[in-house]
Amino acid sequence: MTTKQLIEQIQKKKTFLCIGLDVDLNKIPQHLLKEEDPIFAFNKAIIDATHHLCVAYKPNTAFYEAYGIKGWKSLEKTIKYLNEKYPEIFTIADAKRGDIGNTSTMYAKAFFEDLAFDSVTVAPYMGKDSVEPFLAFKDKHTIMLALTSNAGAFDFQTKTVDGKELYKQVLETSKTWTNAENLMYVVGATKAEYFADIRKIIPNSFLLVPGVGAQGGNLQDVCKYGMTDNVGLLINSSRGIIYASQNEDFAEAAAKSAEILQQEMKAILE
Amino acid sequence: MTTKQLIEQIQKKKTFLCIGLDVDLNKIPQHLLKEEDPIFAFNKAIIDATHHLCVAYKPNTAFYEAYGIKGWKSLEKTIKYLNEKYPEIFTIADAKRGDIGNTSTMYAKAFFEDLAFDSVTVAPYMGKDSVEPFLAFKDKHTIMLALTSNAGAFDFQTKTVDGKELYKQVLETSKTWTNAENLMYVVGATKAEYFADIRKIIPNSFLLVPGVGAQGGNLQDVCKYGMTDNVGLLINSSRGIIYASQNEDFAEAAAKSAEILQQEMKAILE
Repeated sequence: MTTKQLIEQIQKKKTFLCIGLDVDLNKIPQHLLKEEDPIFAFNKAIIDATHHLCVAYKPNTAFYEAYGIKGWKSLEKTIKYLNEKYPEIFTIADAKRGDIGNTSTMYAKAFFEDLAFDSVTVAPYMGKDSVEPFLAFKDKHTIMLALTSNAGAFDFQTKTVDGKELYKQVLETSKTWTNAENLMYVVGATKAEYFADIRKIIPNSFLLVPGVGAQGGNLQDVCKYGMTDNVGLLINSSRGIIYASQNEDFAEAAAKSAEILQQEMKAILE
Repeated sequence: MTTKQLIEQIQKKKTFLCIGLDVDLNKIPQHLLKEEDPIFAFNKAIIDATHHLCVAYKPNTAFYEAYGIKGWKSLEKTIKYLNEKYPEIFTIADAKRGDIGNTSTMYAKAFFEDLAFDSVTVAPYMGKDSVEPFLAFKDKHTIMLALTSNAGAFDFQTKTVDGKELYKQVLETSKTWTNAENLMYVVGATKAEYFADIRKIIPNSFLLVPGVGAQGGNLQDVCKYGMTDNVGLLINSSRGIIYASQNEDFAEAAAKSAEILQQEMKAILE
Protein backbone atom coordinates (compact mmCIF):
# COMPACT_ATOMS: atom_id res chain seq x y z
CA MET A 1 0.00 0.00 0.00
CA THR A 2 1.23 3.50 -0.74
CA THR A 3 1.25 6.27 1.86
CA LYS A 4 -1.19 8.13 -0.39
CA GLN A 5 -3.68 5.27 -0.17
CA LEU A 6 -3.35 5.25 3.61
CA ILE A 7 -4.04 8.99 3.78
CA GLU A 8 -7.07 8.65 1.49
CA GLN A 9 -8.47 5.94 3.73
CA ILE A 10 -8.02 8.17 6.80
CA GLN A 11 -9.85 11.03 5.12
CA LYS A 12 -12.67 8.83 3.86
CA LYS A 13 -13.31 6.96 7.11
CA LYS A 14 -12.56 9.91 9.42
CA THR A 15 -10.34 7.83 11.63
CA PHE A 16 -6.65 7.14 12.17
CA LEU A 17 -7.21 4.30 14.59
CA CYS A 18 -5.07 1.15 14.55
CA ILE A 19 -6.38 -1.86 16.44
CA GLY A 20 -3.83 -4.13 18.09
CA LEU A 21 -4.70 -7.80 17.66
CA ASP A 22 -2.79 -9.06 20.71
CA VAL A 23 -4.74 -12.23 21.32
CA ASP A 24 -4.32 -14.04 24.62
CA LEU A 25 -6.36 -17.26 24.97
CA ASN A 26 -6.80 -16.53 28.69
CA LYS A 27 -8.58 -13.27 27.91
CA ILE A 28 -10.88 -14.08 25.00
CA PRO A 29 -14.49 -15.19 25.59
CA GLN A 30 -14.31 -18.78 26.70
CA HIS A 31 -17.01 -20.03 24.31
CA LEU A 32 -14.51 -19.42 21.47
CA LEU A 33 -12.17 -22.09 22.84
CA LYS A 34 -14.50 -24.69 21.27
CA GLU A 35 -13.64 -23.35 17.79
CA GLU A 36 -11.05 -25.14 15.69
CA ASP A 37 -8.87 -21.99 15.66
CA PRO A 38 -10.00 -19.78 18.58
CA ILE A 39 -7.45 -17.05 17.84
CA PHE A 40 -8.57 -16.65 14.24
CA ALA A 41 -12.26 -16.90 15.22
CA PHE A 42 -11.69 -14.07 17.71
CA ASN A 43 -9.76 -11.91 15.21
CA LYS A 44 -12.33 -12.47 12.45
CA ALA A 45 -15.19 -11.37 14.70
CA ILE A 46 -13.25 -8.30 15.91
CA ILE A 47 -12.24 -7.34 12.36
CA ASP A 48 -15.75 -7.76 10.94
CA ALA A 49 -17.17 -5.59 13.74
CA THR A 50 -14.55 -2.81 13.64
CA HIS A 51 -13.08 -2.51 10.11
CA HIS A 52 -15.12 0.62 9.28
CA LEU A 53 -13.86 2.38 12.42
CA CYS A 54 -10.12 1.93 11.91
CA VAL A 55 -7.53 2.15 9.13
CA ALA A 56 -5.03 -0.40 10.40
CA TYR A 57 -4.66 -3.67 12.32
CA LYS A 58 -1.51 -4.57 14.19
CA PRO A 59 -0.99 -8.15 15.39
CA ASN A 60 1.96 -8.33 17.78
CA THR A 61 3.82 -11.45 16.65
CA ALA A 62 4.82 -12.39 20.22
CA PHE A 63 1.23 -13.36 20.99
CA TYR A 64 1.20 -15.76 18.02
CA GLU A 65 4.70 -17.19 18.51
CA ALA A 66 3.70 -17.99 22.08
CA TYR A 67 1.37 -20.66 20.65
CA GLY A 68 4.02 -22.18 18.36
CA ILE A 69 2.98 -23.60 14.98
CA LYS A 70 -0.71 -23.16 15.84
CA GLY A 71 -0.13 -19.50 16.55
CA TRP A 72 1.67 -18.96 13.25
CA LYS A 73 -1.23 -20.59 11.44
CA SER A 74 -3.63 -18.20 13.18
CA LEU A 75 -1.45 -15.25 12.15
CA GLU A 76 -1.35 -16.46 8.54
CA LYS A 77 -5.11 -16.87 8.47
CA THR A 78 -5.65 -13.44 10.01
CA ILE A 79 -3.48 -11.54 7.52
CA LYS A 80 -4.92 -13.54 4.61
CA TYR A 81 -8.45 -12.71 5.75
CA LEU A 82 -7.58 -9.02 6.04
CA ASN A 83 -5.91 -8.87 2.63
CA GLU A 84 -8.77 -10.67 0.89
CA LYS A 85 -11.79 -9.15 2.61
CA TYR A 86 -10.53 -5.68 3.54
CA PRO A 87 -7.65 -4.88 1.15
CA GLU A 88 -7.99 -1.15 1.90
CA ILE A 89 -6.78 -1.76 5.49
CA PHE A 90 -3.13 -1.05 6.37
CA THR A 91 -1.54 -4.05 8.10
CA ILE A 92 1.33 -3.95 10.58
CA ALA A 93 3.37 -6.95 11.75
CA ASP A 94 4.51 -5.77 15.17
CA ALA A 95 7.62 -7.94 15.25
CA LYS A 96 10.39 -5.52 16.36
CA ARG A 97 12.93 -7.39 14.25
CA GLY A 98 16.49 -6.40 13.32
CA ASP A 99 19.59 -8.37 12.38
CA ILE A 100 22.64 -8.06 10.13
CA GLY A 101 22.03 -7.40 6.43
CA ASN A 102 21.22 -10.73 4.78
CA THR A 103 19.33 -11.90 7.83
CA SER A 104 17.19 -8.77 7.92
CA THR A 105 16.36 -9.48 4.28
CA MET A 106 15.01 -12.88 5.34
CA TYR A 107 12.78 -11.25 7.96
CA ALA A 108 11.63 -8.66 5.42
CA LYS A 109 10.69 -11.34 2.90
CA ALA A 110 8.84 -13.33 5.55
CA PHE A 111 6.66 -10.38 6.56
CA PHE A 112 6.35 -8.39 3.31
CA GLU A 113 6.20 -11.18 0.73
CA ASP A 114 5.13 -14.47 2.33
CA LEU A 115 2.68 -13.04 4.85
CA ALA A 116 2.00 -9.93 2.70
CA PHE A 117 1.90 -7.36 5.50
CA ASP A 118 2.06 -3.69 4.45
CA SER A 119 4.55 -2.91 7.20
CA VAL A 120 6.71 -4.33 9.97
CA THR A 121 8.17 -2.83 13.13
CA VAL A 122 11.97 -2.95 13.56
CA ALA A 123 14.50 -2.10 16.28
CA PRO A 124 17.28 0.43 15.49
CA TYR A 125 20.13 -0.74 17.75
CA MET A 126 22.12 -2.49 14.98
CA GLY A 127 22.00 0.55 12.69
CA LYS A 128 21.74 1.25 9.00
CA ASP A 129 22.56 -2.14 7.46
CA SER A 130 20.06 -3.86 9.75
CA VAL A 131 17.18 -1.61 8.61
CA GLU A 132 17.92 -0.80 4.95
CA PRO A 133 17.09 -4.36 3.80
CA PHE A 134 13.51 -3.70 4.97
CA LEU A 135 13.42 -0.31 3.23
CA ALA A 136 14.24 -1.88 -0.14
CA PHE A 137 10.68 -3.19 -0.62
CA LYS A 138 8.50 -0.95 -2.78
CA ASP A 139 5.21 0.24 -1.27
CA LYS A 140 6.07 -1.50 2.00
CA HIS A 141 6.71 0.44 5.21
CA THR A 142 9.27 -0.03 7.94
CA ILE A 143 8.19 1.28 11.31
CA MET A 144 11.25 1.84 13.47
CA LEU A 145 11.22 2.10 17.26
CA ALA A 146 12.15 5.66 18.23
CA LEU A 147 10.63 6.52 21.63
CA THR A 148 8.64 3.68 23.15
CA SER A 149 5.82 3.87 25.69
CA ASN A 150 7.37 1.71 28.42
CA ALA A 151 9.36 2.75 31.50
CA GLY A 152 12.55 1.27 30.02
CA ALA A 153 12.46 3.95 27.29
CA PHE A 154 14.32 6.14 29.78
CA ASP A 155 17.18 3.64 30.16
CA PHE A 156 18.79 4.44 26.81
CA GLN A 157 16.43 6.20 24.38
CA THR A 158 16.34 9.52 26.23
CA LYS A 159 20.03 9.51 27.22
CA THR A 160 22.12 12.25 25.65
CA VAL A 161 24.28 11.10 22.73
CA ASP A 162 26.74 13.62 21.30
CA GLY A 163 24.61 16.46 22.65
CA LYS A 164 21.22 15.06 21.64
CA GLU A 165 18.90 12.36 23.01
CA LEU A 166 19.46 8.92 21.49
CA TYR A 167 15.95 8.74 19.99
CA LYS A 168 16.59 12.03 18.18
CA GLN A 169 19.90 10.69 16.86
CA VAL A 170 18.00 7.63 15.65
CA LEU A 171 15.46 9.83 13.86
CA GLU A 172 18.08 12.11 12.28
CA THR A 173 20.45 9.35 11.23
CA SER A 174 17.68 7.27 9.69
CA LYS A 175 16.71 10.15 7.39
CA THR A 176 20.00 9.62 5.51
CA TRP A 177 19.36 5.92 4.79
CA THR A 178 18.51 4.62 1.32
CA ASN A 179 14.74 4.61 0.71
CA ALA A 180 14.17 6.55 3.96
CA GLU A 181 10.80 7.61 2.54
CA ASN A 182 9.59 4.10 3.46
CA LEU A 183 10.21 4.78 7.17
CA MET A 184 7.59 5.39 9.82
CA TYR A 185 8.37 5.56 13.55
CA VAL A 186 7.01 4.26 16.84
CA VAL A 187 6.50 7.08 19.36
CA GLY A 188 4.61 6.37 22.59
CA ALA A 189 1.58 8.47 23.51
CA THR A 190 2.72 8.54 27.12
CA LYS A 191 5.32 11.12 26.10
CA ALA A 192 3.12 13.67 24.31
CA GLU A 193 5.39 16.58 25.19
CA TYR A 194 8.12 15.04 23.04
CA PHE A 195 6.05 15.18 19.85
CA ALA A 196 6.81 18.86 19.12
CA ASP A 197 10.56 18.19 19.10
CA ILE A 198 10.08 15.05 17.03
CA ARG A 199 8.14 16.95 14.38
CA LYS A 200 11.08 19.35 13.99
CA ILE A 201 13.18 16.38 12.84
CA ILE A 202 10.60 14.40 10.86
CA PRO A 203 7.87 16.88 9.90
CA ASN A 204 5.90 14.56 7.62
CA SER A 205 6.59 10.94 8.56
CA PHE A 206 3.80 8.74 9.86
CA LEU A 207 4.06 7.86 13.54
CA LEU A 208 2.61 4.71 15.05
CA VAL A 209 1.51 5.73 18.53
CA PRO A 210 0.88 3.10 21.20
CA GLY A 211 -0.02 3.95 24.76
CA VAL A 212 -3.38 5.75 24.38
CA GLY A 213 -5.87 4.34 26.90
CA ALA A 214 -4.59 1.47 29.05
CA GLN A 215 -1.08 2.95 29.30
CA GLY A 216 -2.31 6.47 30.11
CA GLY A 217 -1.60 8.47 26.93
CA ASN A 218 -3.96 11.27 25.88
CA LEU A 219 -5.29 11.49 22.32
CA GLN A 220 -5.82 15.27 22.35
CA ASP A 221 -2.25 15.97 23.46
CA VAL A 222 -0.75 13.62 20.89
CA CYS A 223 -2.73 15.27 18.08
CA LYS A 224 -1.93 18.78 19.32
CA TYR A 225 1.82 18.20 19.04
CA GLY A 226 2.10 15.36 16.56
CA MET A 227 -0.46 15.85 13.78
CA THR A 228 0.63 16.95 10.30
CA ASP A 229 -1.28 18.25 7.26
CA ASN A 230 -1.64 14.63 6.15
CA VAL A 231 -2.55 13.54 9.70
CA GLY A 232 0.70 11.55 10.03
CA LEU A 233 -0.55 9.54 12.99
CA LEU A 234 -1.76 6.01 13.54
CA ILE A 235 -3.06 5.73 17.09
CA ASN A 236 -2.98 2.18 18.37
CA SER A 237 -5.30 0.69 20.95
CA SER A 238 -5.24 -3.01 21.78
CA ARG A 239 -6.63 -4.20 25.11
CA GLY A 240 -9.07 -1.29 25.51
CA ILE A 241 -10.85 -2.39 22.35
CA ILE A 242 -10.45 -6.12 21.88
CA TYR A 243 -11.12 -6.99 25.52
CA ALA A 244 -13.95 -4.48 26.06
CA SER A 245 -16.11 -7.49 26.95
CA GLN A 246 -15.25 -11.10 27.67
CA ASN A 247 -18.78 -12.30 27.03
CA GLU A 248 -20.59 -13.35 23.87
CA ASP A 249 -21.09 -9.66 22.97
CA PHE A 250 -17.30 -9.12 22.74
CA ALA A 251 -17.33 -8.02 19.08
CA GLU A 252 -20.11 -5.46 19.57
CA ALA A 253 -18.40 -4.20 22.71
CA ALA A 254 -15.13 -3.85 20.78
CA ALA A 255 -16.96 -1.87 18.08
CA LYS A 256 -18.44 0.43 20.72
CA SER A 257 -15.01 1.08 22.26
CA ALA A 258 -13.49 1.64 18.82
CA GLU A 259 -16.31 4.01 17.91
CA ILE A 260 -15.65 6.21 20.93
CA LEU A 261 -12.07 6.72 19.73
CA GLN A 262 -13.17 7.07 16.09
CA GLN A 263 -15.66 9.80 17.05
CA GLU A 264 -12.95 11.68 18.96
CA MET A 265 -10.72 11.38 15.90
CA LYS A 266 -13.49 12.52 13.56
CA ALA A 267 -14.00 15.62 15.70
CA ILE A 268 -10.27 16.36 15.59
CA LEU A 269 -10.10 15.85 11.81
CA GLU A 270 -13.03 18.21 11.26
CA MET B 1 21.41 -25.48 31.74
CA THR B 2 23.52 -23.79 34.41
CA THR B 3 26.60 -21.73 33.58
CA LYS B 4 28.59 -24.28 35.59
CA GLN B 5 27.44 -27.07 33.27
CA LEU B 6 28.42 -25.00 30.24
CA ILE B 7 31.90 -24.40 31.67
CA GLU B 8 32.33 -28.10 32.48
CA GLN B 9 31.43 -28.99 28.91
CA ILE B 10 34.00 -26.51 27.57
CA GLN B 11 36.71 -27.99 29.76
CA LYS B 12 35.82 -31.57 28.89
CA LYS B 13 35.56 -31.10 25.12
CA LYS B 14 38.39 -28.53 24.86
CA THR B 15 36.28 -26.23 22.71
CA PHE B 16 34.15 -23.12 23.07
CA LEU B 17 32.78 -23.26 19.56
CA CYS B 18 29.17 -22.42 18.76
CA ILE B 19 27.86 -23.49 15.36
CA GLY B 20 25.29 -21.24 13.71
CA LEU B 21 22.52 -23.23 12.05
CA ASP B 22 21.53 -20.56 9.51
CA VAL B 23 19.99 -22.82 6.91
CA ASP B 24 19.30 -21.42 3.44
CA LEU B 25 17.69 -23.87 0.99
CA ASN B 26 19.64 -22.26 -1.85
CA LYS B 27 22.93 -23.16 -0.19
CA ILE B 28 22.43 -26.69 1.10
CA PRO B 29 23.38 -29.73 -1.02
CA GLN B 30 20.65 -30.09 -3.59
CA HIS B 31 20.14 -33.83 -3.04
CA LEU B 32 18.62 -32.94 0.36
CA LEU B 33 15.73 -31.13 -1.33
CA LYS B 34 14.17 -34.55 -1.98
CA GLU B 35 13.83 -35.11 1.78
CA GLU B 36 10.48 -34.48 3.47
CA ASP B 37 12.08 -31.78 5.65
CA PRO B 38 15.33 -30.68 3.95
CA ILE B 39 16.18 -28.12 6.65
CA PHE B 40 15.94 -30.65 9.46
CA ALA B 41 17.75 -33.31 7.40
CA PHE B 42 20.60 -30.83 6.87
CA ASN B 43 20.72 -29.80 10.55
CA LYS B 44 20.61 -33.40 11.79
CA ALA B 45 23.55 -34.39 9.58
CA ILE B 46 25.55 -31.31 10.62
CA ILE B 47 24.81 -31.87 14.32
CA ASP B 48 25.66 -35.59 14.23
CA ALA B 49 28.96 -34.79 12.51
CA THR B 50 30.03 -31.86 14.71
CA HIS B 51 28.50 -32.23 18.22
CA HIS B 52 31.81 -33.41 19.77
CA LEU B 53 33.64 -30.35 18.40
CA CYS B 54 31.37 -27.63 19.76
CA VAL B 55 29.49 -26.75 22.95
CA ALA B 56 26.59 -24.82 21.45
CA TYR B 57 24.30 -24.55 18.43
CA LYS B 58 22.64 -21.30 17.42
CA PRO B 59 19.81 -21.35 14.88
CA ASN B 60 19.02 -17.81 13.73
CA THR B 61 15.21 -17.71 13.74
CA ALA B 62 15.06 -15.46 10.65
CA PHE B 63 16.15 -18.34 8.46
CA TYR B 64 13.28 -20.49 9.76
CA GLU B 65 10.62 -17.76 9.74
CA ALA B 66 11.52 -17.12 6.11
CA TYR B 67 9.93 -20.52 5.31
CA GLY B 68 6.75 -19.86 7.29
CA ILE B 69 5.01 -22.73 9.10
CA LYS B 70 7.35 -25.26 7.45
CA GLY B 71 10.34 -23.37 8.79
CA TRP B 72 8.94 -23.30 12.32
CA LYS B 73 8.40 -27.04 12.15
CA SER B 74 12.03 -27.51 11.11
CA LEU B 75 13.14 -25.33 14.03
CA GLU B 76 10.98 -27.32 16.46
CA LYS B 77 12.38 -30.60 15.19
CA THR B 78 15.95 -29.31 15.38
CA ILE B 79 15.75 -28.13 19.00
CA LYS B 80 13.88 -31.31 20.01
CA TYR B 81 16.56 -33.45 18.37
CA LEU B 82 19.31 -31.50 20.16
CA ASN B 83 17.61 -31.71 23.55
CA GLU B 84 16.91 -35.43 23.25
CA LYS B 85 20.10 -36.68 21.63
CA TYR B 86 22.69 -34.18 22.89
CA PRO B 87 21.29 -32.69 26.13
CA GLU B 88 24.77 -31.53 27.18
CA ILE B 89 24.79 -29.00 24.30
CA PHE B 90 23.94 -25.35 25.04
CA THR B 91 21.23 -24.08 22.67
CA ILE B 92 20.74 -20.48 21.55
CA ALA B 93 17.66 -19.11 19.78
CA ASP B 94 19.16 -16.18 17.87
CA ALA B 95 15.93 -14.20 17.72
CA LYS B 96 16.98 -10.68 18.81
CA ARG B 97 13.59 -10.11 20.43
CA GLY B 98 12.48 -7.33 22.76
CA ASP B 99 9.11 -5.75 23.56
CA ILE B 100 7.28 -4.21 26.50
CA GLY B 101 6.97 -6.28 29.68
CA ASN B 102 4.07 -8.72 29.21
CA THR B 103 4.91 -9.17 25.56
CA SER B 104 8.54 -10.00 26.31
CA THR B 105 7.22 -12.62 28.73
CA MET B 106 5.35 -14.23 25.82
CA TYR B 107 8.55 -14.36 23.75
CA ALA B 108 10.46 -15.77 26.73
CA LYS B 109 7.89 -18.53 27.25
CA ALA B 110 7.92 -19.38 23.54
CA PHE B 111 11.70 -19.84 23.44
CA PHE B 112 12.50 -21.07 26.97
CA GLU B 113 9.47 -23.24 27.73
CA ASP B 114 7.72 -24.31 24.52
CA LEU B 115 10.82 -24.74 22.37
CA ALA B 116 13.05 -25.42 25.41
CA PHE B 117 16.09 -23.43 24.29
CA ASP B 118 18.72 -22.71 26.95
CA SER B 119 19.07 -19.11 25.82
CA VAL B 120 17.72 -16.42 23.53
CA THR B 121 19.26 -13.26 22.09
CA VAL B 122 17.52 -9.93 22.84
CA ALA B 123 17.88 -6.29 21.77
CA PRO B 124 18.45 -3.64 24.47
CA TYR B 125 16.83 -0.53 22.92
CA MET B 126 13.60 -0.72 24.99
CA GLY B 127 15.49 -1.02 28.28
CA LYS B 128 15.05 -2.78 31.58
CA ASP B 129 11.39 -3.81 31.49
CA SER B 130 11.82 -5.31 28.01
CA VAL B 131 14.68 -7.59 29.14
CA GLU B 132 13.89 -8.47 32.77
CA PRO B 133 10.98 -10.75 31.76
CA PHE B 134 13.55 -12.97 30.03
CA LEU B 135 15.87 -12.90 33.05
CA ALA B 136 13.16 -14.28 35.33
CA PHE B 137 13.58 -17.84 34.01
CA LYS B 138 15.79 -20.03 36.21
CA ASP B 139 18.79 -21.69 34.50
CA LYS B 140 17.95 -19.91 31.25
CA HIS B 141 20.24 -17.30 29.72
CA THR B 142 19.48 -14.01 28.02
CA ILE B 143 22.11 -12.92 25.54
CA MET B 144 21.80 -9.18 24.96
CA LEU B 145 23.19 -7.33 21.96
CA ALA B 146 26.02 -5.06 23.13
CA LEU B 147 28.48 -4.47 20.28
CA THR B 148 27.52 -6.22 17.07
CA SER B 149 29.77 -7.30 14.20
CA ASN B 150 28.09 -5.34 11.39
CA ALA B 151 28.96 -1.92 9.96
CA GLY B 152 25.79 -0.42 11.46
CA ALA B 153 27.22 -1.00 14.95
CA PHE B 154 28.94 2.37 14.51
CA ASP B 155 25.65 4.21 13.88
CA PHE B 156 24.53 4.17 17.52
CA GLN B 157 26.36 1.56 19.64
CA THR B 158 29.72 3.33 19.66
CA LYS B 159 28.31 6.86 19.97
CA THR B 160 29.13 8.64 23.20
CA VAL B 161 26.27 8.71 25.72
CA ASP B 162 26.76 10.81 28.84
CA GLY B 163 30.52 10.51 28.44
CA LYS B 164 30.64 6.81 27.58
CA GLU B 165 29.89 4.75 24.46
CA LEU B 166 26.31 3.49 24.24
CA TYR B 167 27.34 -0.18 24.31
CA LYS B 168 29.22 0.44 27.57
CA GLN B 169 26.15 2.18 29.01
CA VAL B 170 24.14 -0.86 27.99
CA LEU B 171 26.60 -3.20 29.74
CA GLU B 172 26.77 -1.12 32.92
CA THR B 173 23.06 -0.44 33.20
CA SER B 174 22.15 -4.07 32.62
CA LYS B 175 24.29 -5.13 35.60
CA THR B 176 21.75 -3.47 37.90
CA TRP B 177 18.76 -5.41 36.55
CA THR B 178 17.01 -8.14 38.53
CA ASN B 179 18.57 -11.56 37.87
CA ALA B 180 21.44 -9.92 35.95
CA GLU B 181 23.45 -13.09 36.59
CA ASN B 182 21.39 -14.67 33.79
CA LEU B 183 22.81 -12.19 31.25
CA MET B 184 25.34 -12.94 28.55
CA TYR B 185 26.26 -10.46 25.79
CA VAL B 186 26.82 -10.40 22.03
CA VAL B 187 30.17 -8.80 21.15
CA GLY B 188 31.44 -9.04 17.58
CA ALA B 189 34.89 -10.53 16.91
CA THR B 190 35.51 -7.85 14.30
CA LYS B 191 36.15 -5.43 17.16
CA ALA B 192 38.74 -7.36 19.19
CA GLU B 193 40.39 -4.21 20.52
CA TYR B 194 37.17 -3.41 22.42
CA PHE B 195 37.26 -6.59 24.48
CA ALA B 196 39.73 -5.26 27.06
CA ASP B 197 37.42 -2.33 27.91
CA ILE B 198 34.40 -4.62 27.97
CA ARG B 199 36.07 -6.94 30.46
CA LYS B 200 36.57 -3.99 32.82
CA ILE B 201 32.78 -3.65 33.00
CA ILE B 202 31.73 -7.31 32.90
CA PRO B 203 34.78 -9.32 34.03
CA ASN B 204 33.07 -12.71 34.20
CA SER B 205 30.03 -12.75 31.92
CA PHE B 206 29.90 -15.08 28.96
CA LEU B 207 30.18 -13.36 25.57
CA LEU B 208 28.68 -14.77 22.39
CA VAL B 209 31.12 -13.74 19.67
CA PRO B 210 30.03 -13.74 16.03
CA GLY B 211 32.26 -12.57 13.21
CA VAL B 212 35.20 -15.01 13.36
CA GLY B 213 35.99 -16.27 9.87
CA ALA B 214 33.67 -15.05 7.11
CA GLN B 215 33.32 -11.59 8.69
CA GLY B 216 37.06 -11.18 9.31
CA GLY B 217 37.43 -11.51 13.10
CA ASN B 218 40.53 -13.16 14.57
CA LEU B 219 40.23 -15.90 17.21
CA GLN B 220 43.62 -15.24 18.83
CA ASP B 221 42.88 -11.55 19.32
CA VAL B 222 39.46 -12.19 20.79
CA CYS B 223 40.88 -14.69 23.28
CA LYS B 224 43.80 -12.42 24.18
CA TYR B 225 41.49 -9.60 25.29
CA GLY B 226 38.23 -11.38 26.06
CA MET B 227 38.98 -14.68 27.79
CA THR B 228 38.34 -15.11 31.53
CA ASP B 229 39.37 -17.76 34.07
CA ASN B 230 36.19 -19.64 33.14
CA VAL B 231 36.78 -19.03 29.42
CA GLY B 232 33.72 -16.77 29.21
CA LEU B 233 33.55 -16.97 25.43
CA LEU B 234 31.35 -18.74 22.91
CA ILE B 235 32.81 -18.21 19.45
CA ASN B 236 30.22 -18.57 16.72
CA SER B 237 30.85 -19.68 13.19
CA SER B 238 28.02 -20.33 10.76
CA ARG B 239 28.71 -20.24 7.01
CA GLY B 240 32.37 -21.23 7.34
CA ILE B 241 31.32 -24.54 8.87
CA ILE B 242 27.89 -25.51 7.60
CA TYR B 243 28.60 -24.58 3.97
CA ALA B 244 32.16 -25.94 3.87
CA SER B 245 30.94 -28.18 1.04
CA GLN B 246 27.76 -28.16 -1.01
CA ASN B 247 28.21 -31.76 -2.14
CA GLU B 248 27.20 -35.07 -0.58
CA ASP B 249 30.23 -34.84 1.75
CA PHE B 250 28.85 -31.66 3.37
CA ALA B 251 28.65 -33.10 6.91
CA GLU B 252 32.23 -34.43 6.86
CA ALA B 253 33.43 -31.14 5.40
CA ALA B 254 31.61 -29.26 8.17
CA ALA B 255 33.27 -31.47 10.77
CA LYS B 256 36.69 -30.78 9.22
CA SER B 257 36.11 -27.01 9.32
CA ALA B 258 34.81 -27.22 12.88
CA GLU B 259 37.80 -29.31 13.91
CA ILE B 260 40.26 -26.68 12.67
CA LEU B 261 38.64 -24.14 15.00
CA GLN B 262 38.33 -26.68 17.82
CA GLN B 263 42.04 -27.50 17.57
CA GLU B 264 42.92 -23.80 17.73
CA MET B 265 40.71 -23.49 20.79
CA LYS B 266 42.23 -26.56 22.40
CA ALA B 267 45.71 -25.06 21.99
CA ILE B 268 44.54 -21.80 23.54
CA LEU B 269 42.88 -23.61 26.47
CA GLU B 270 46.04 -25.62 27.17
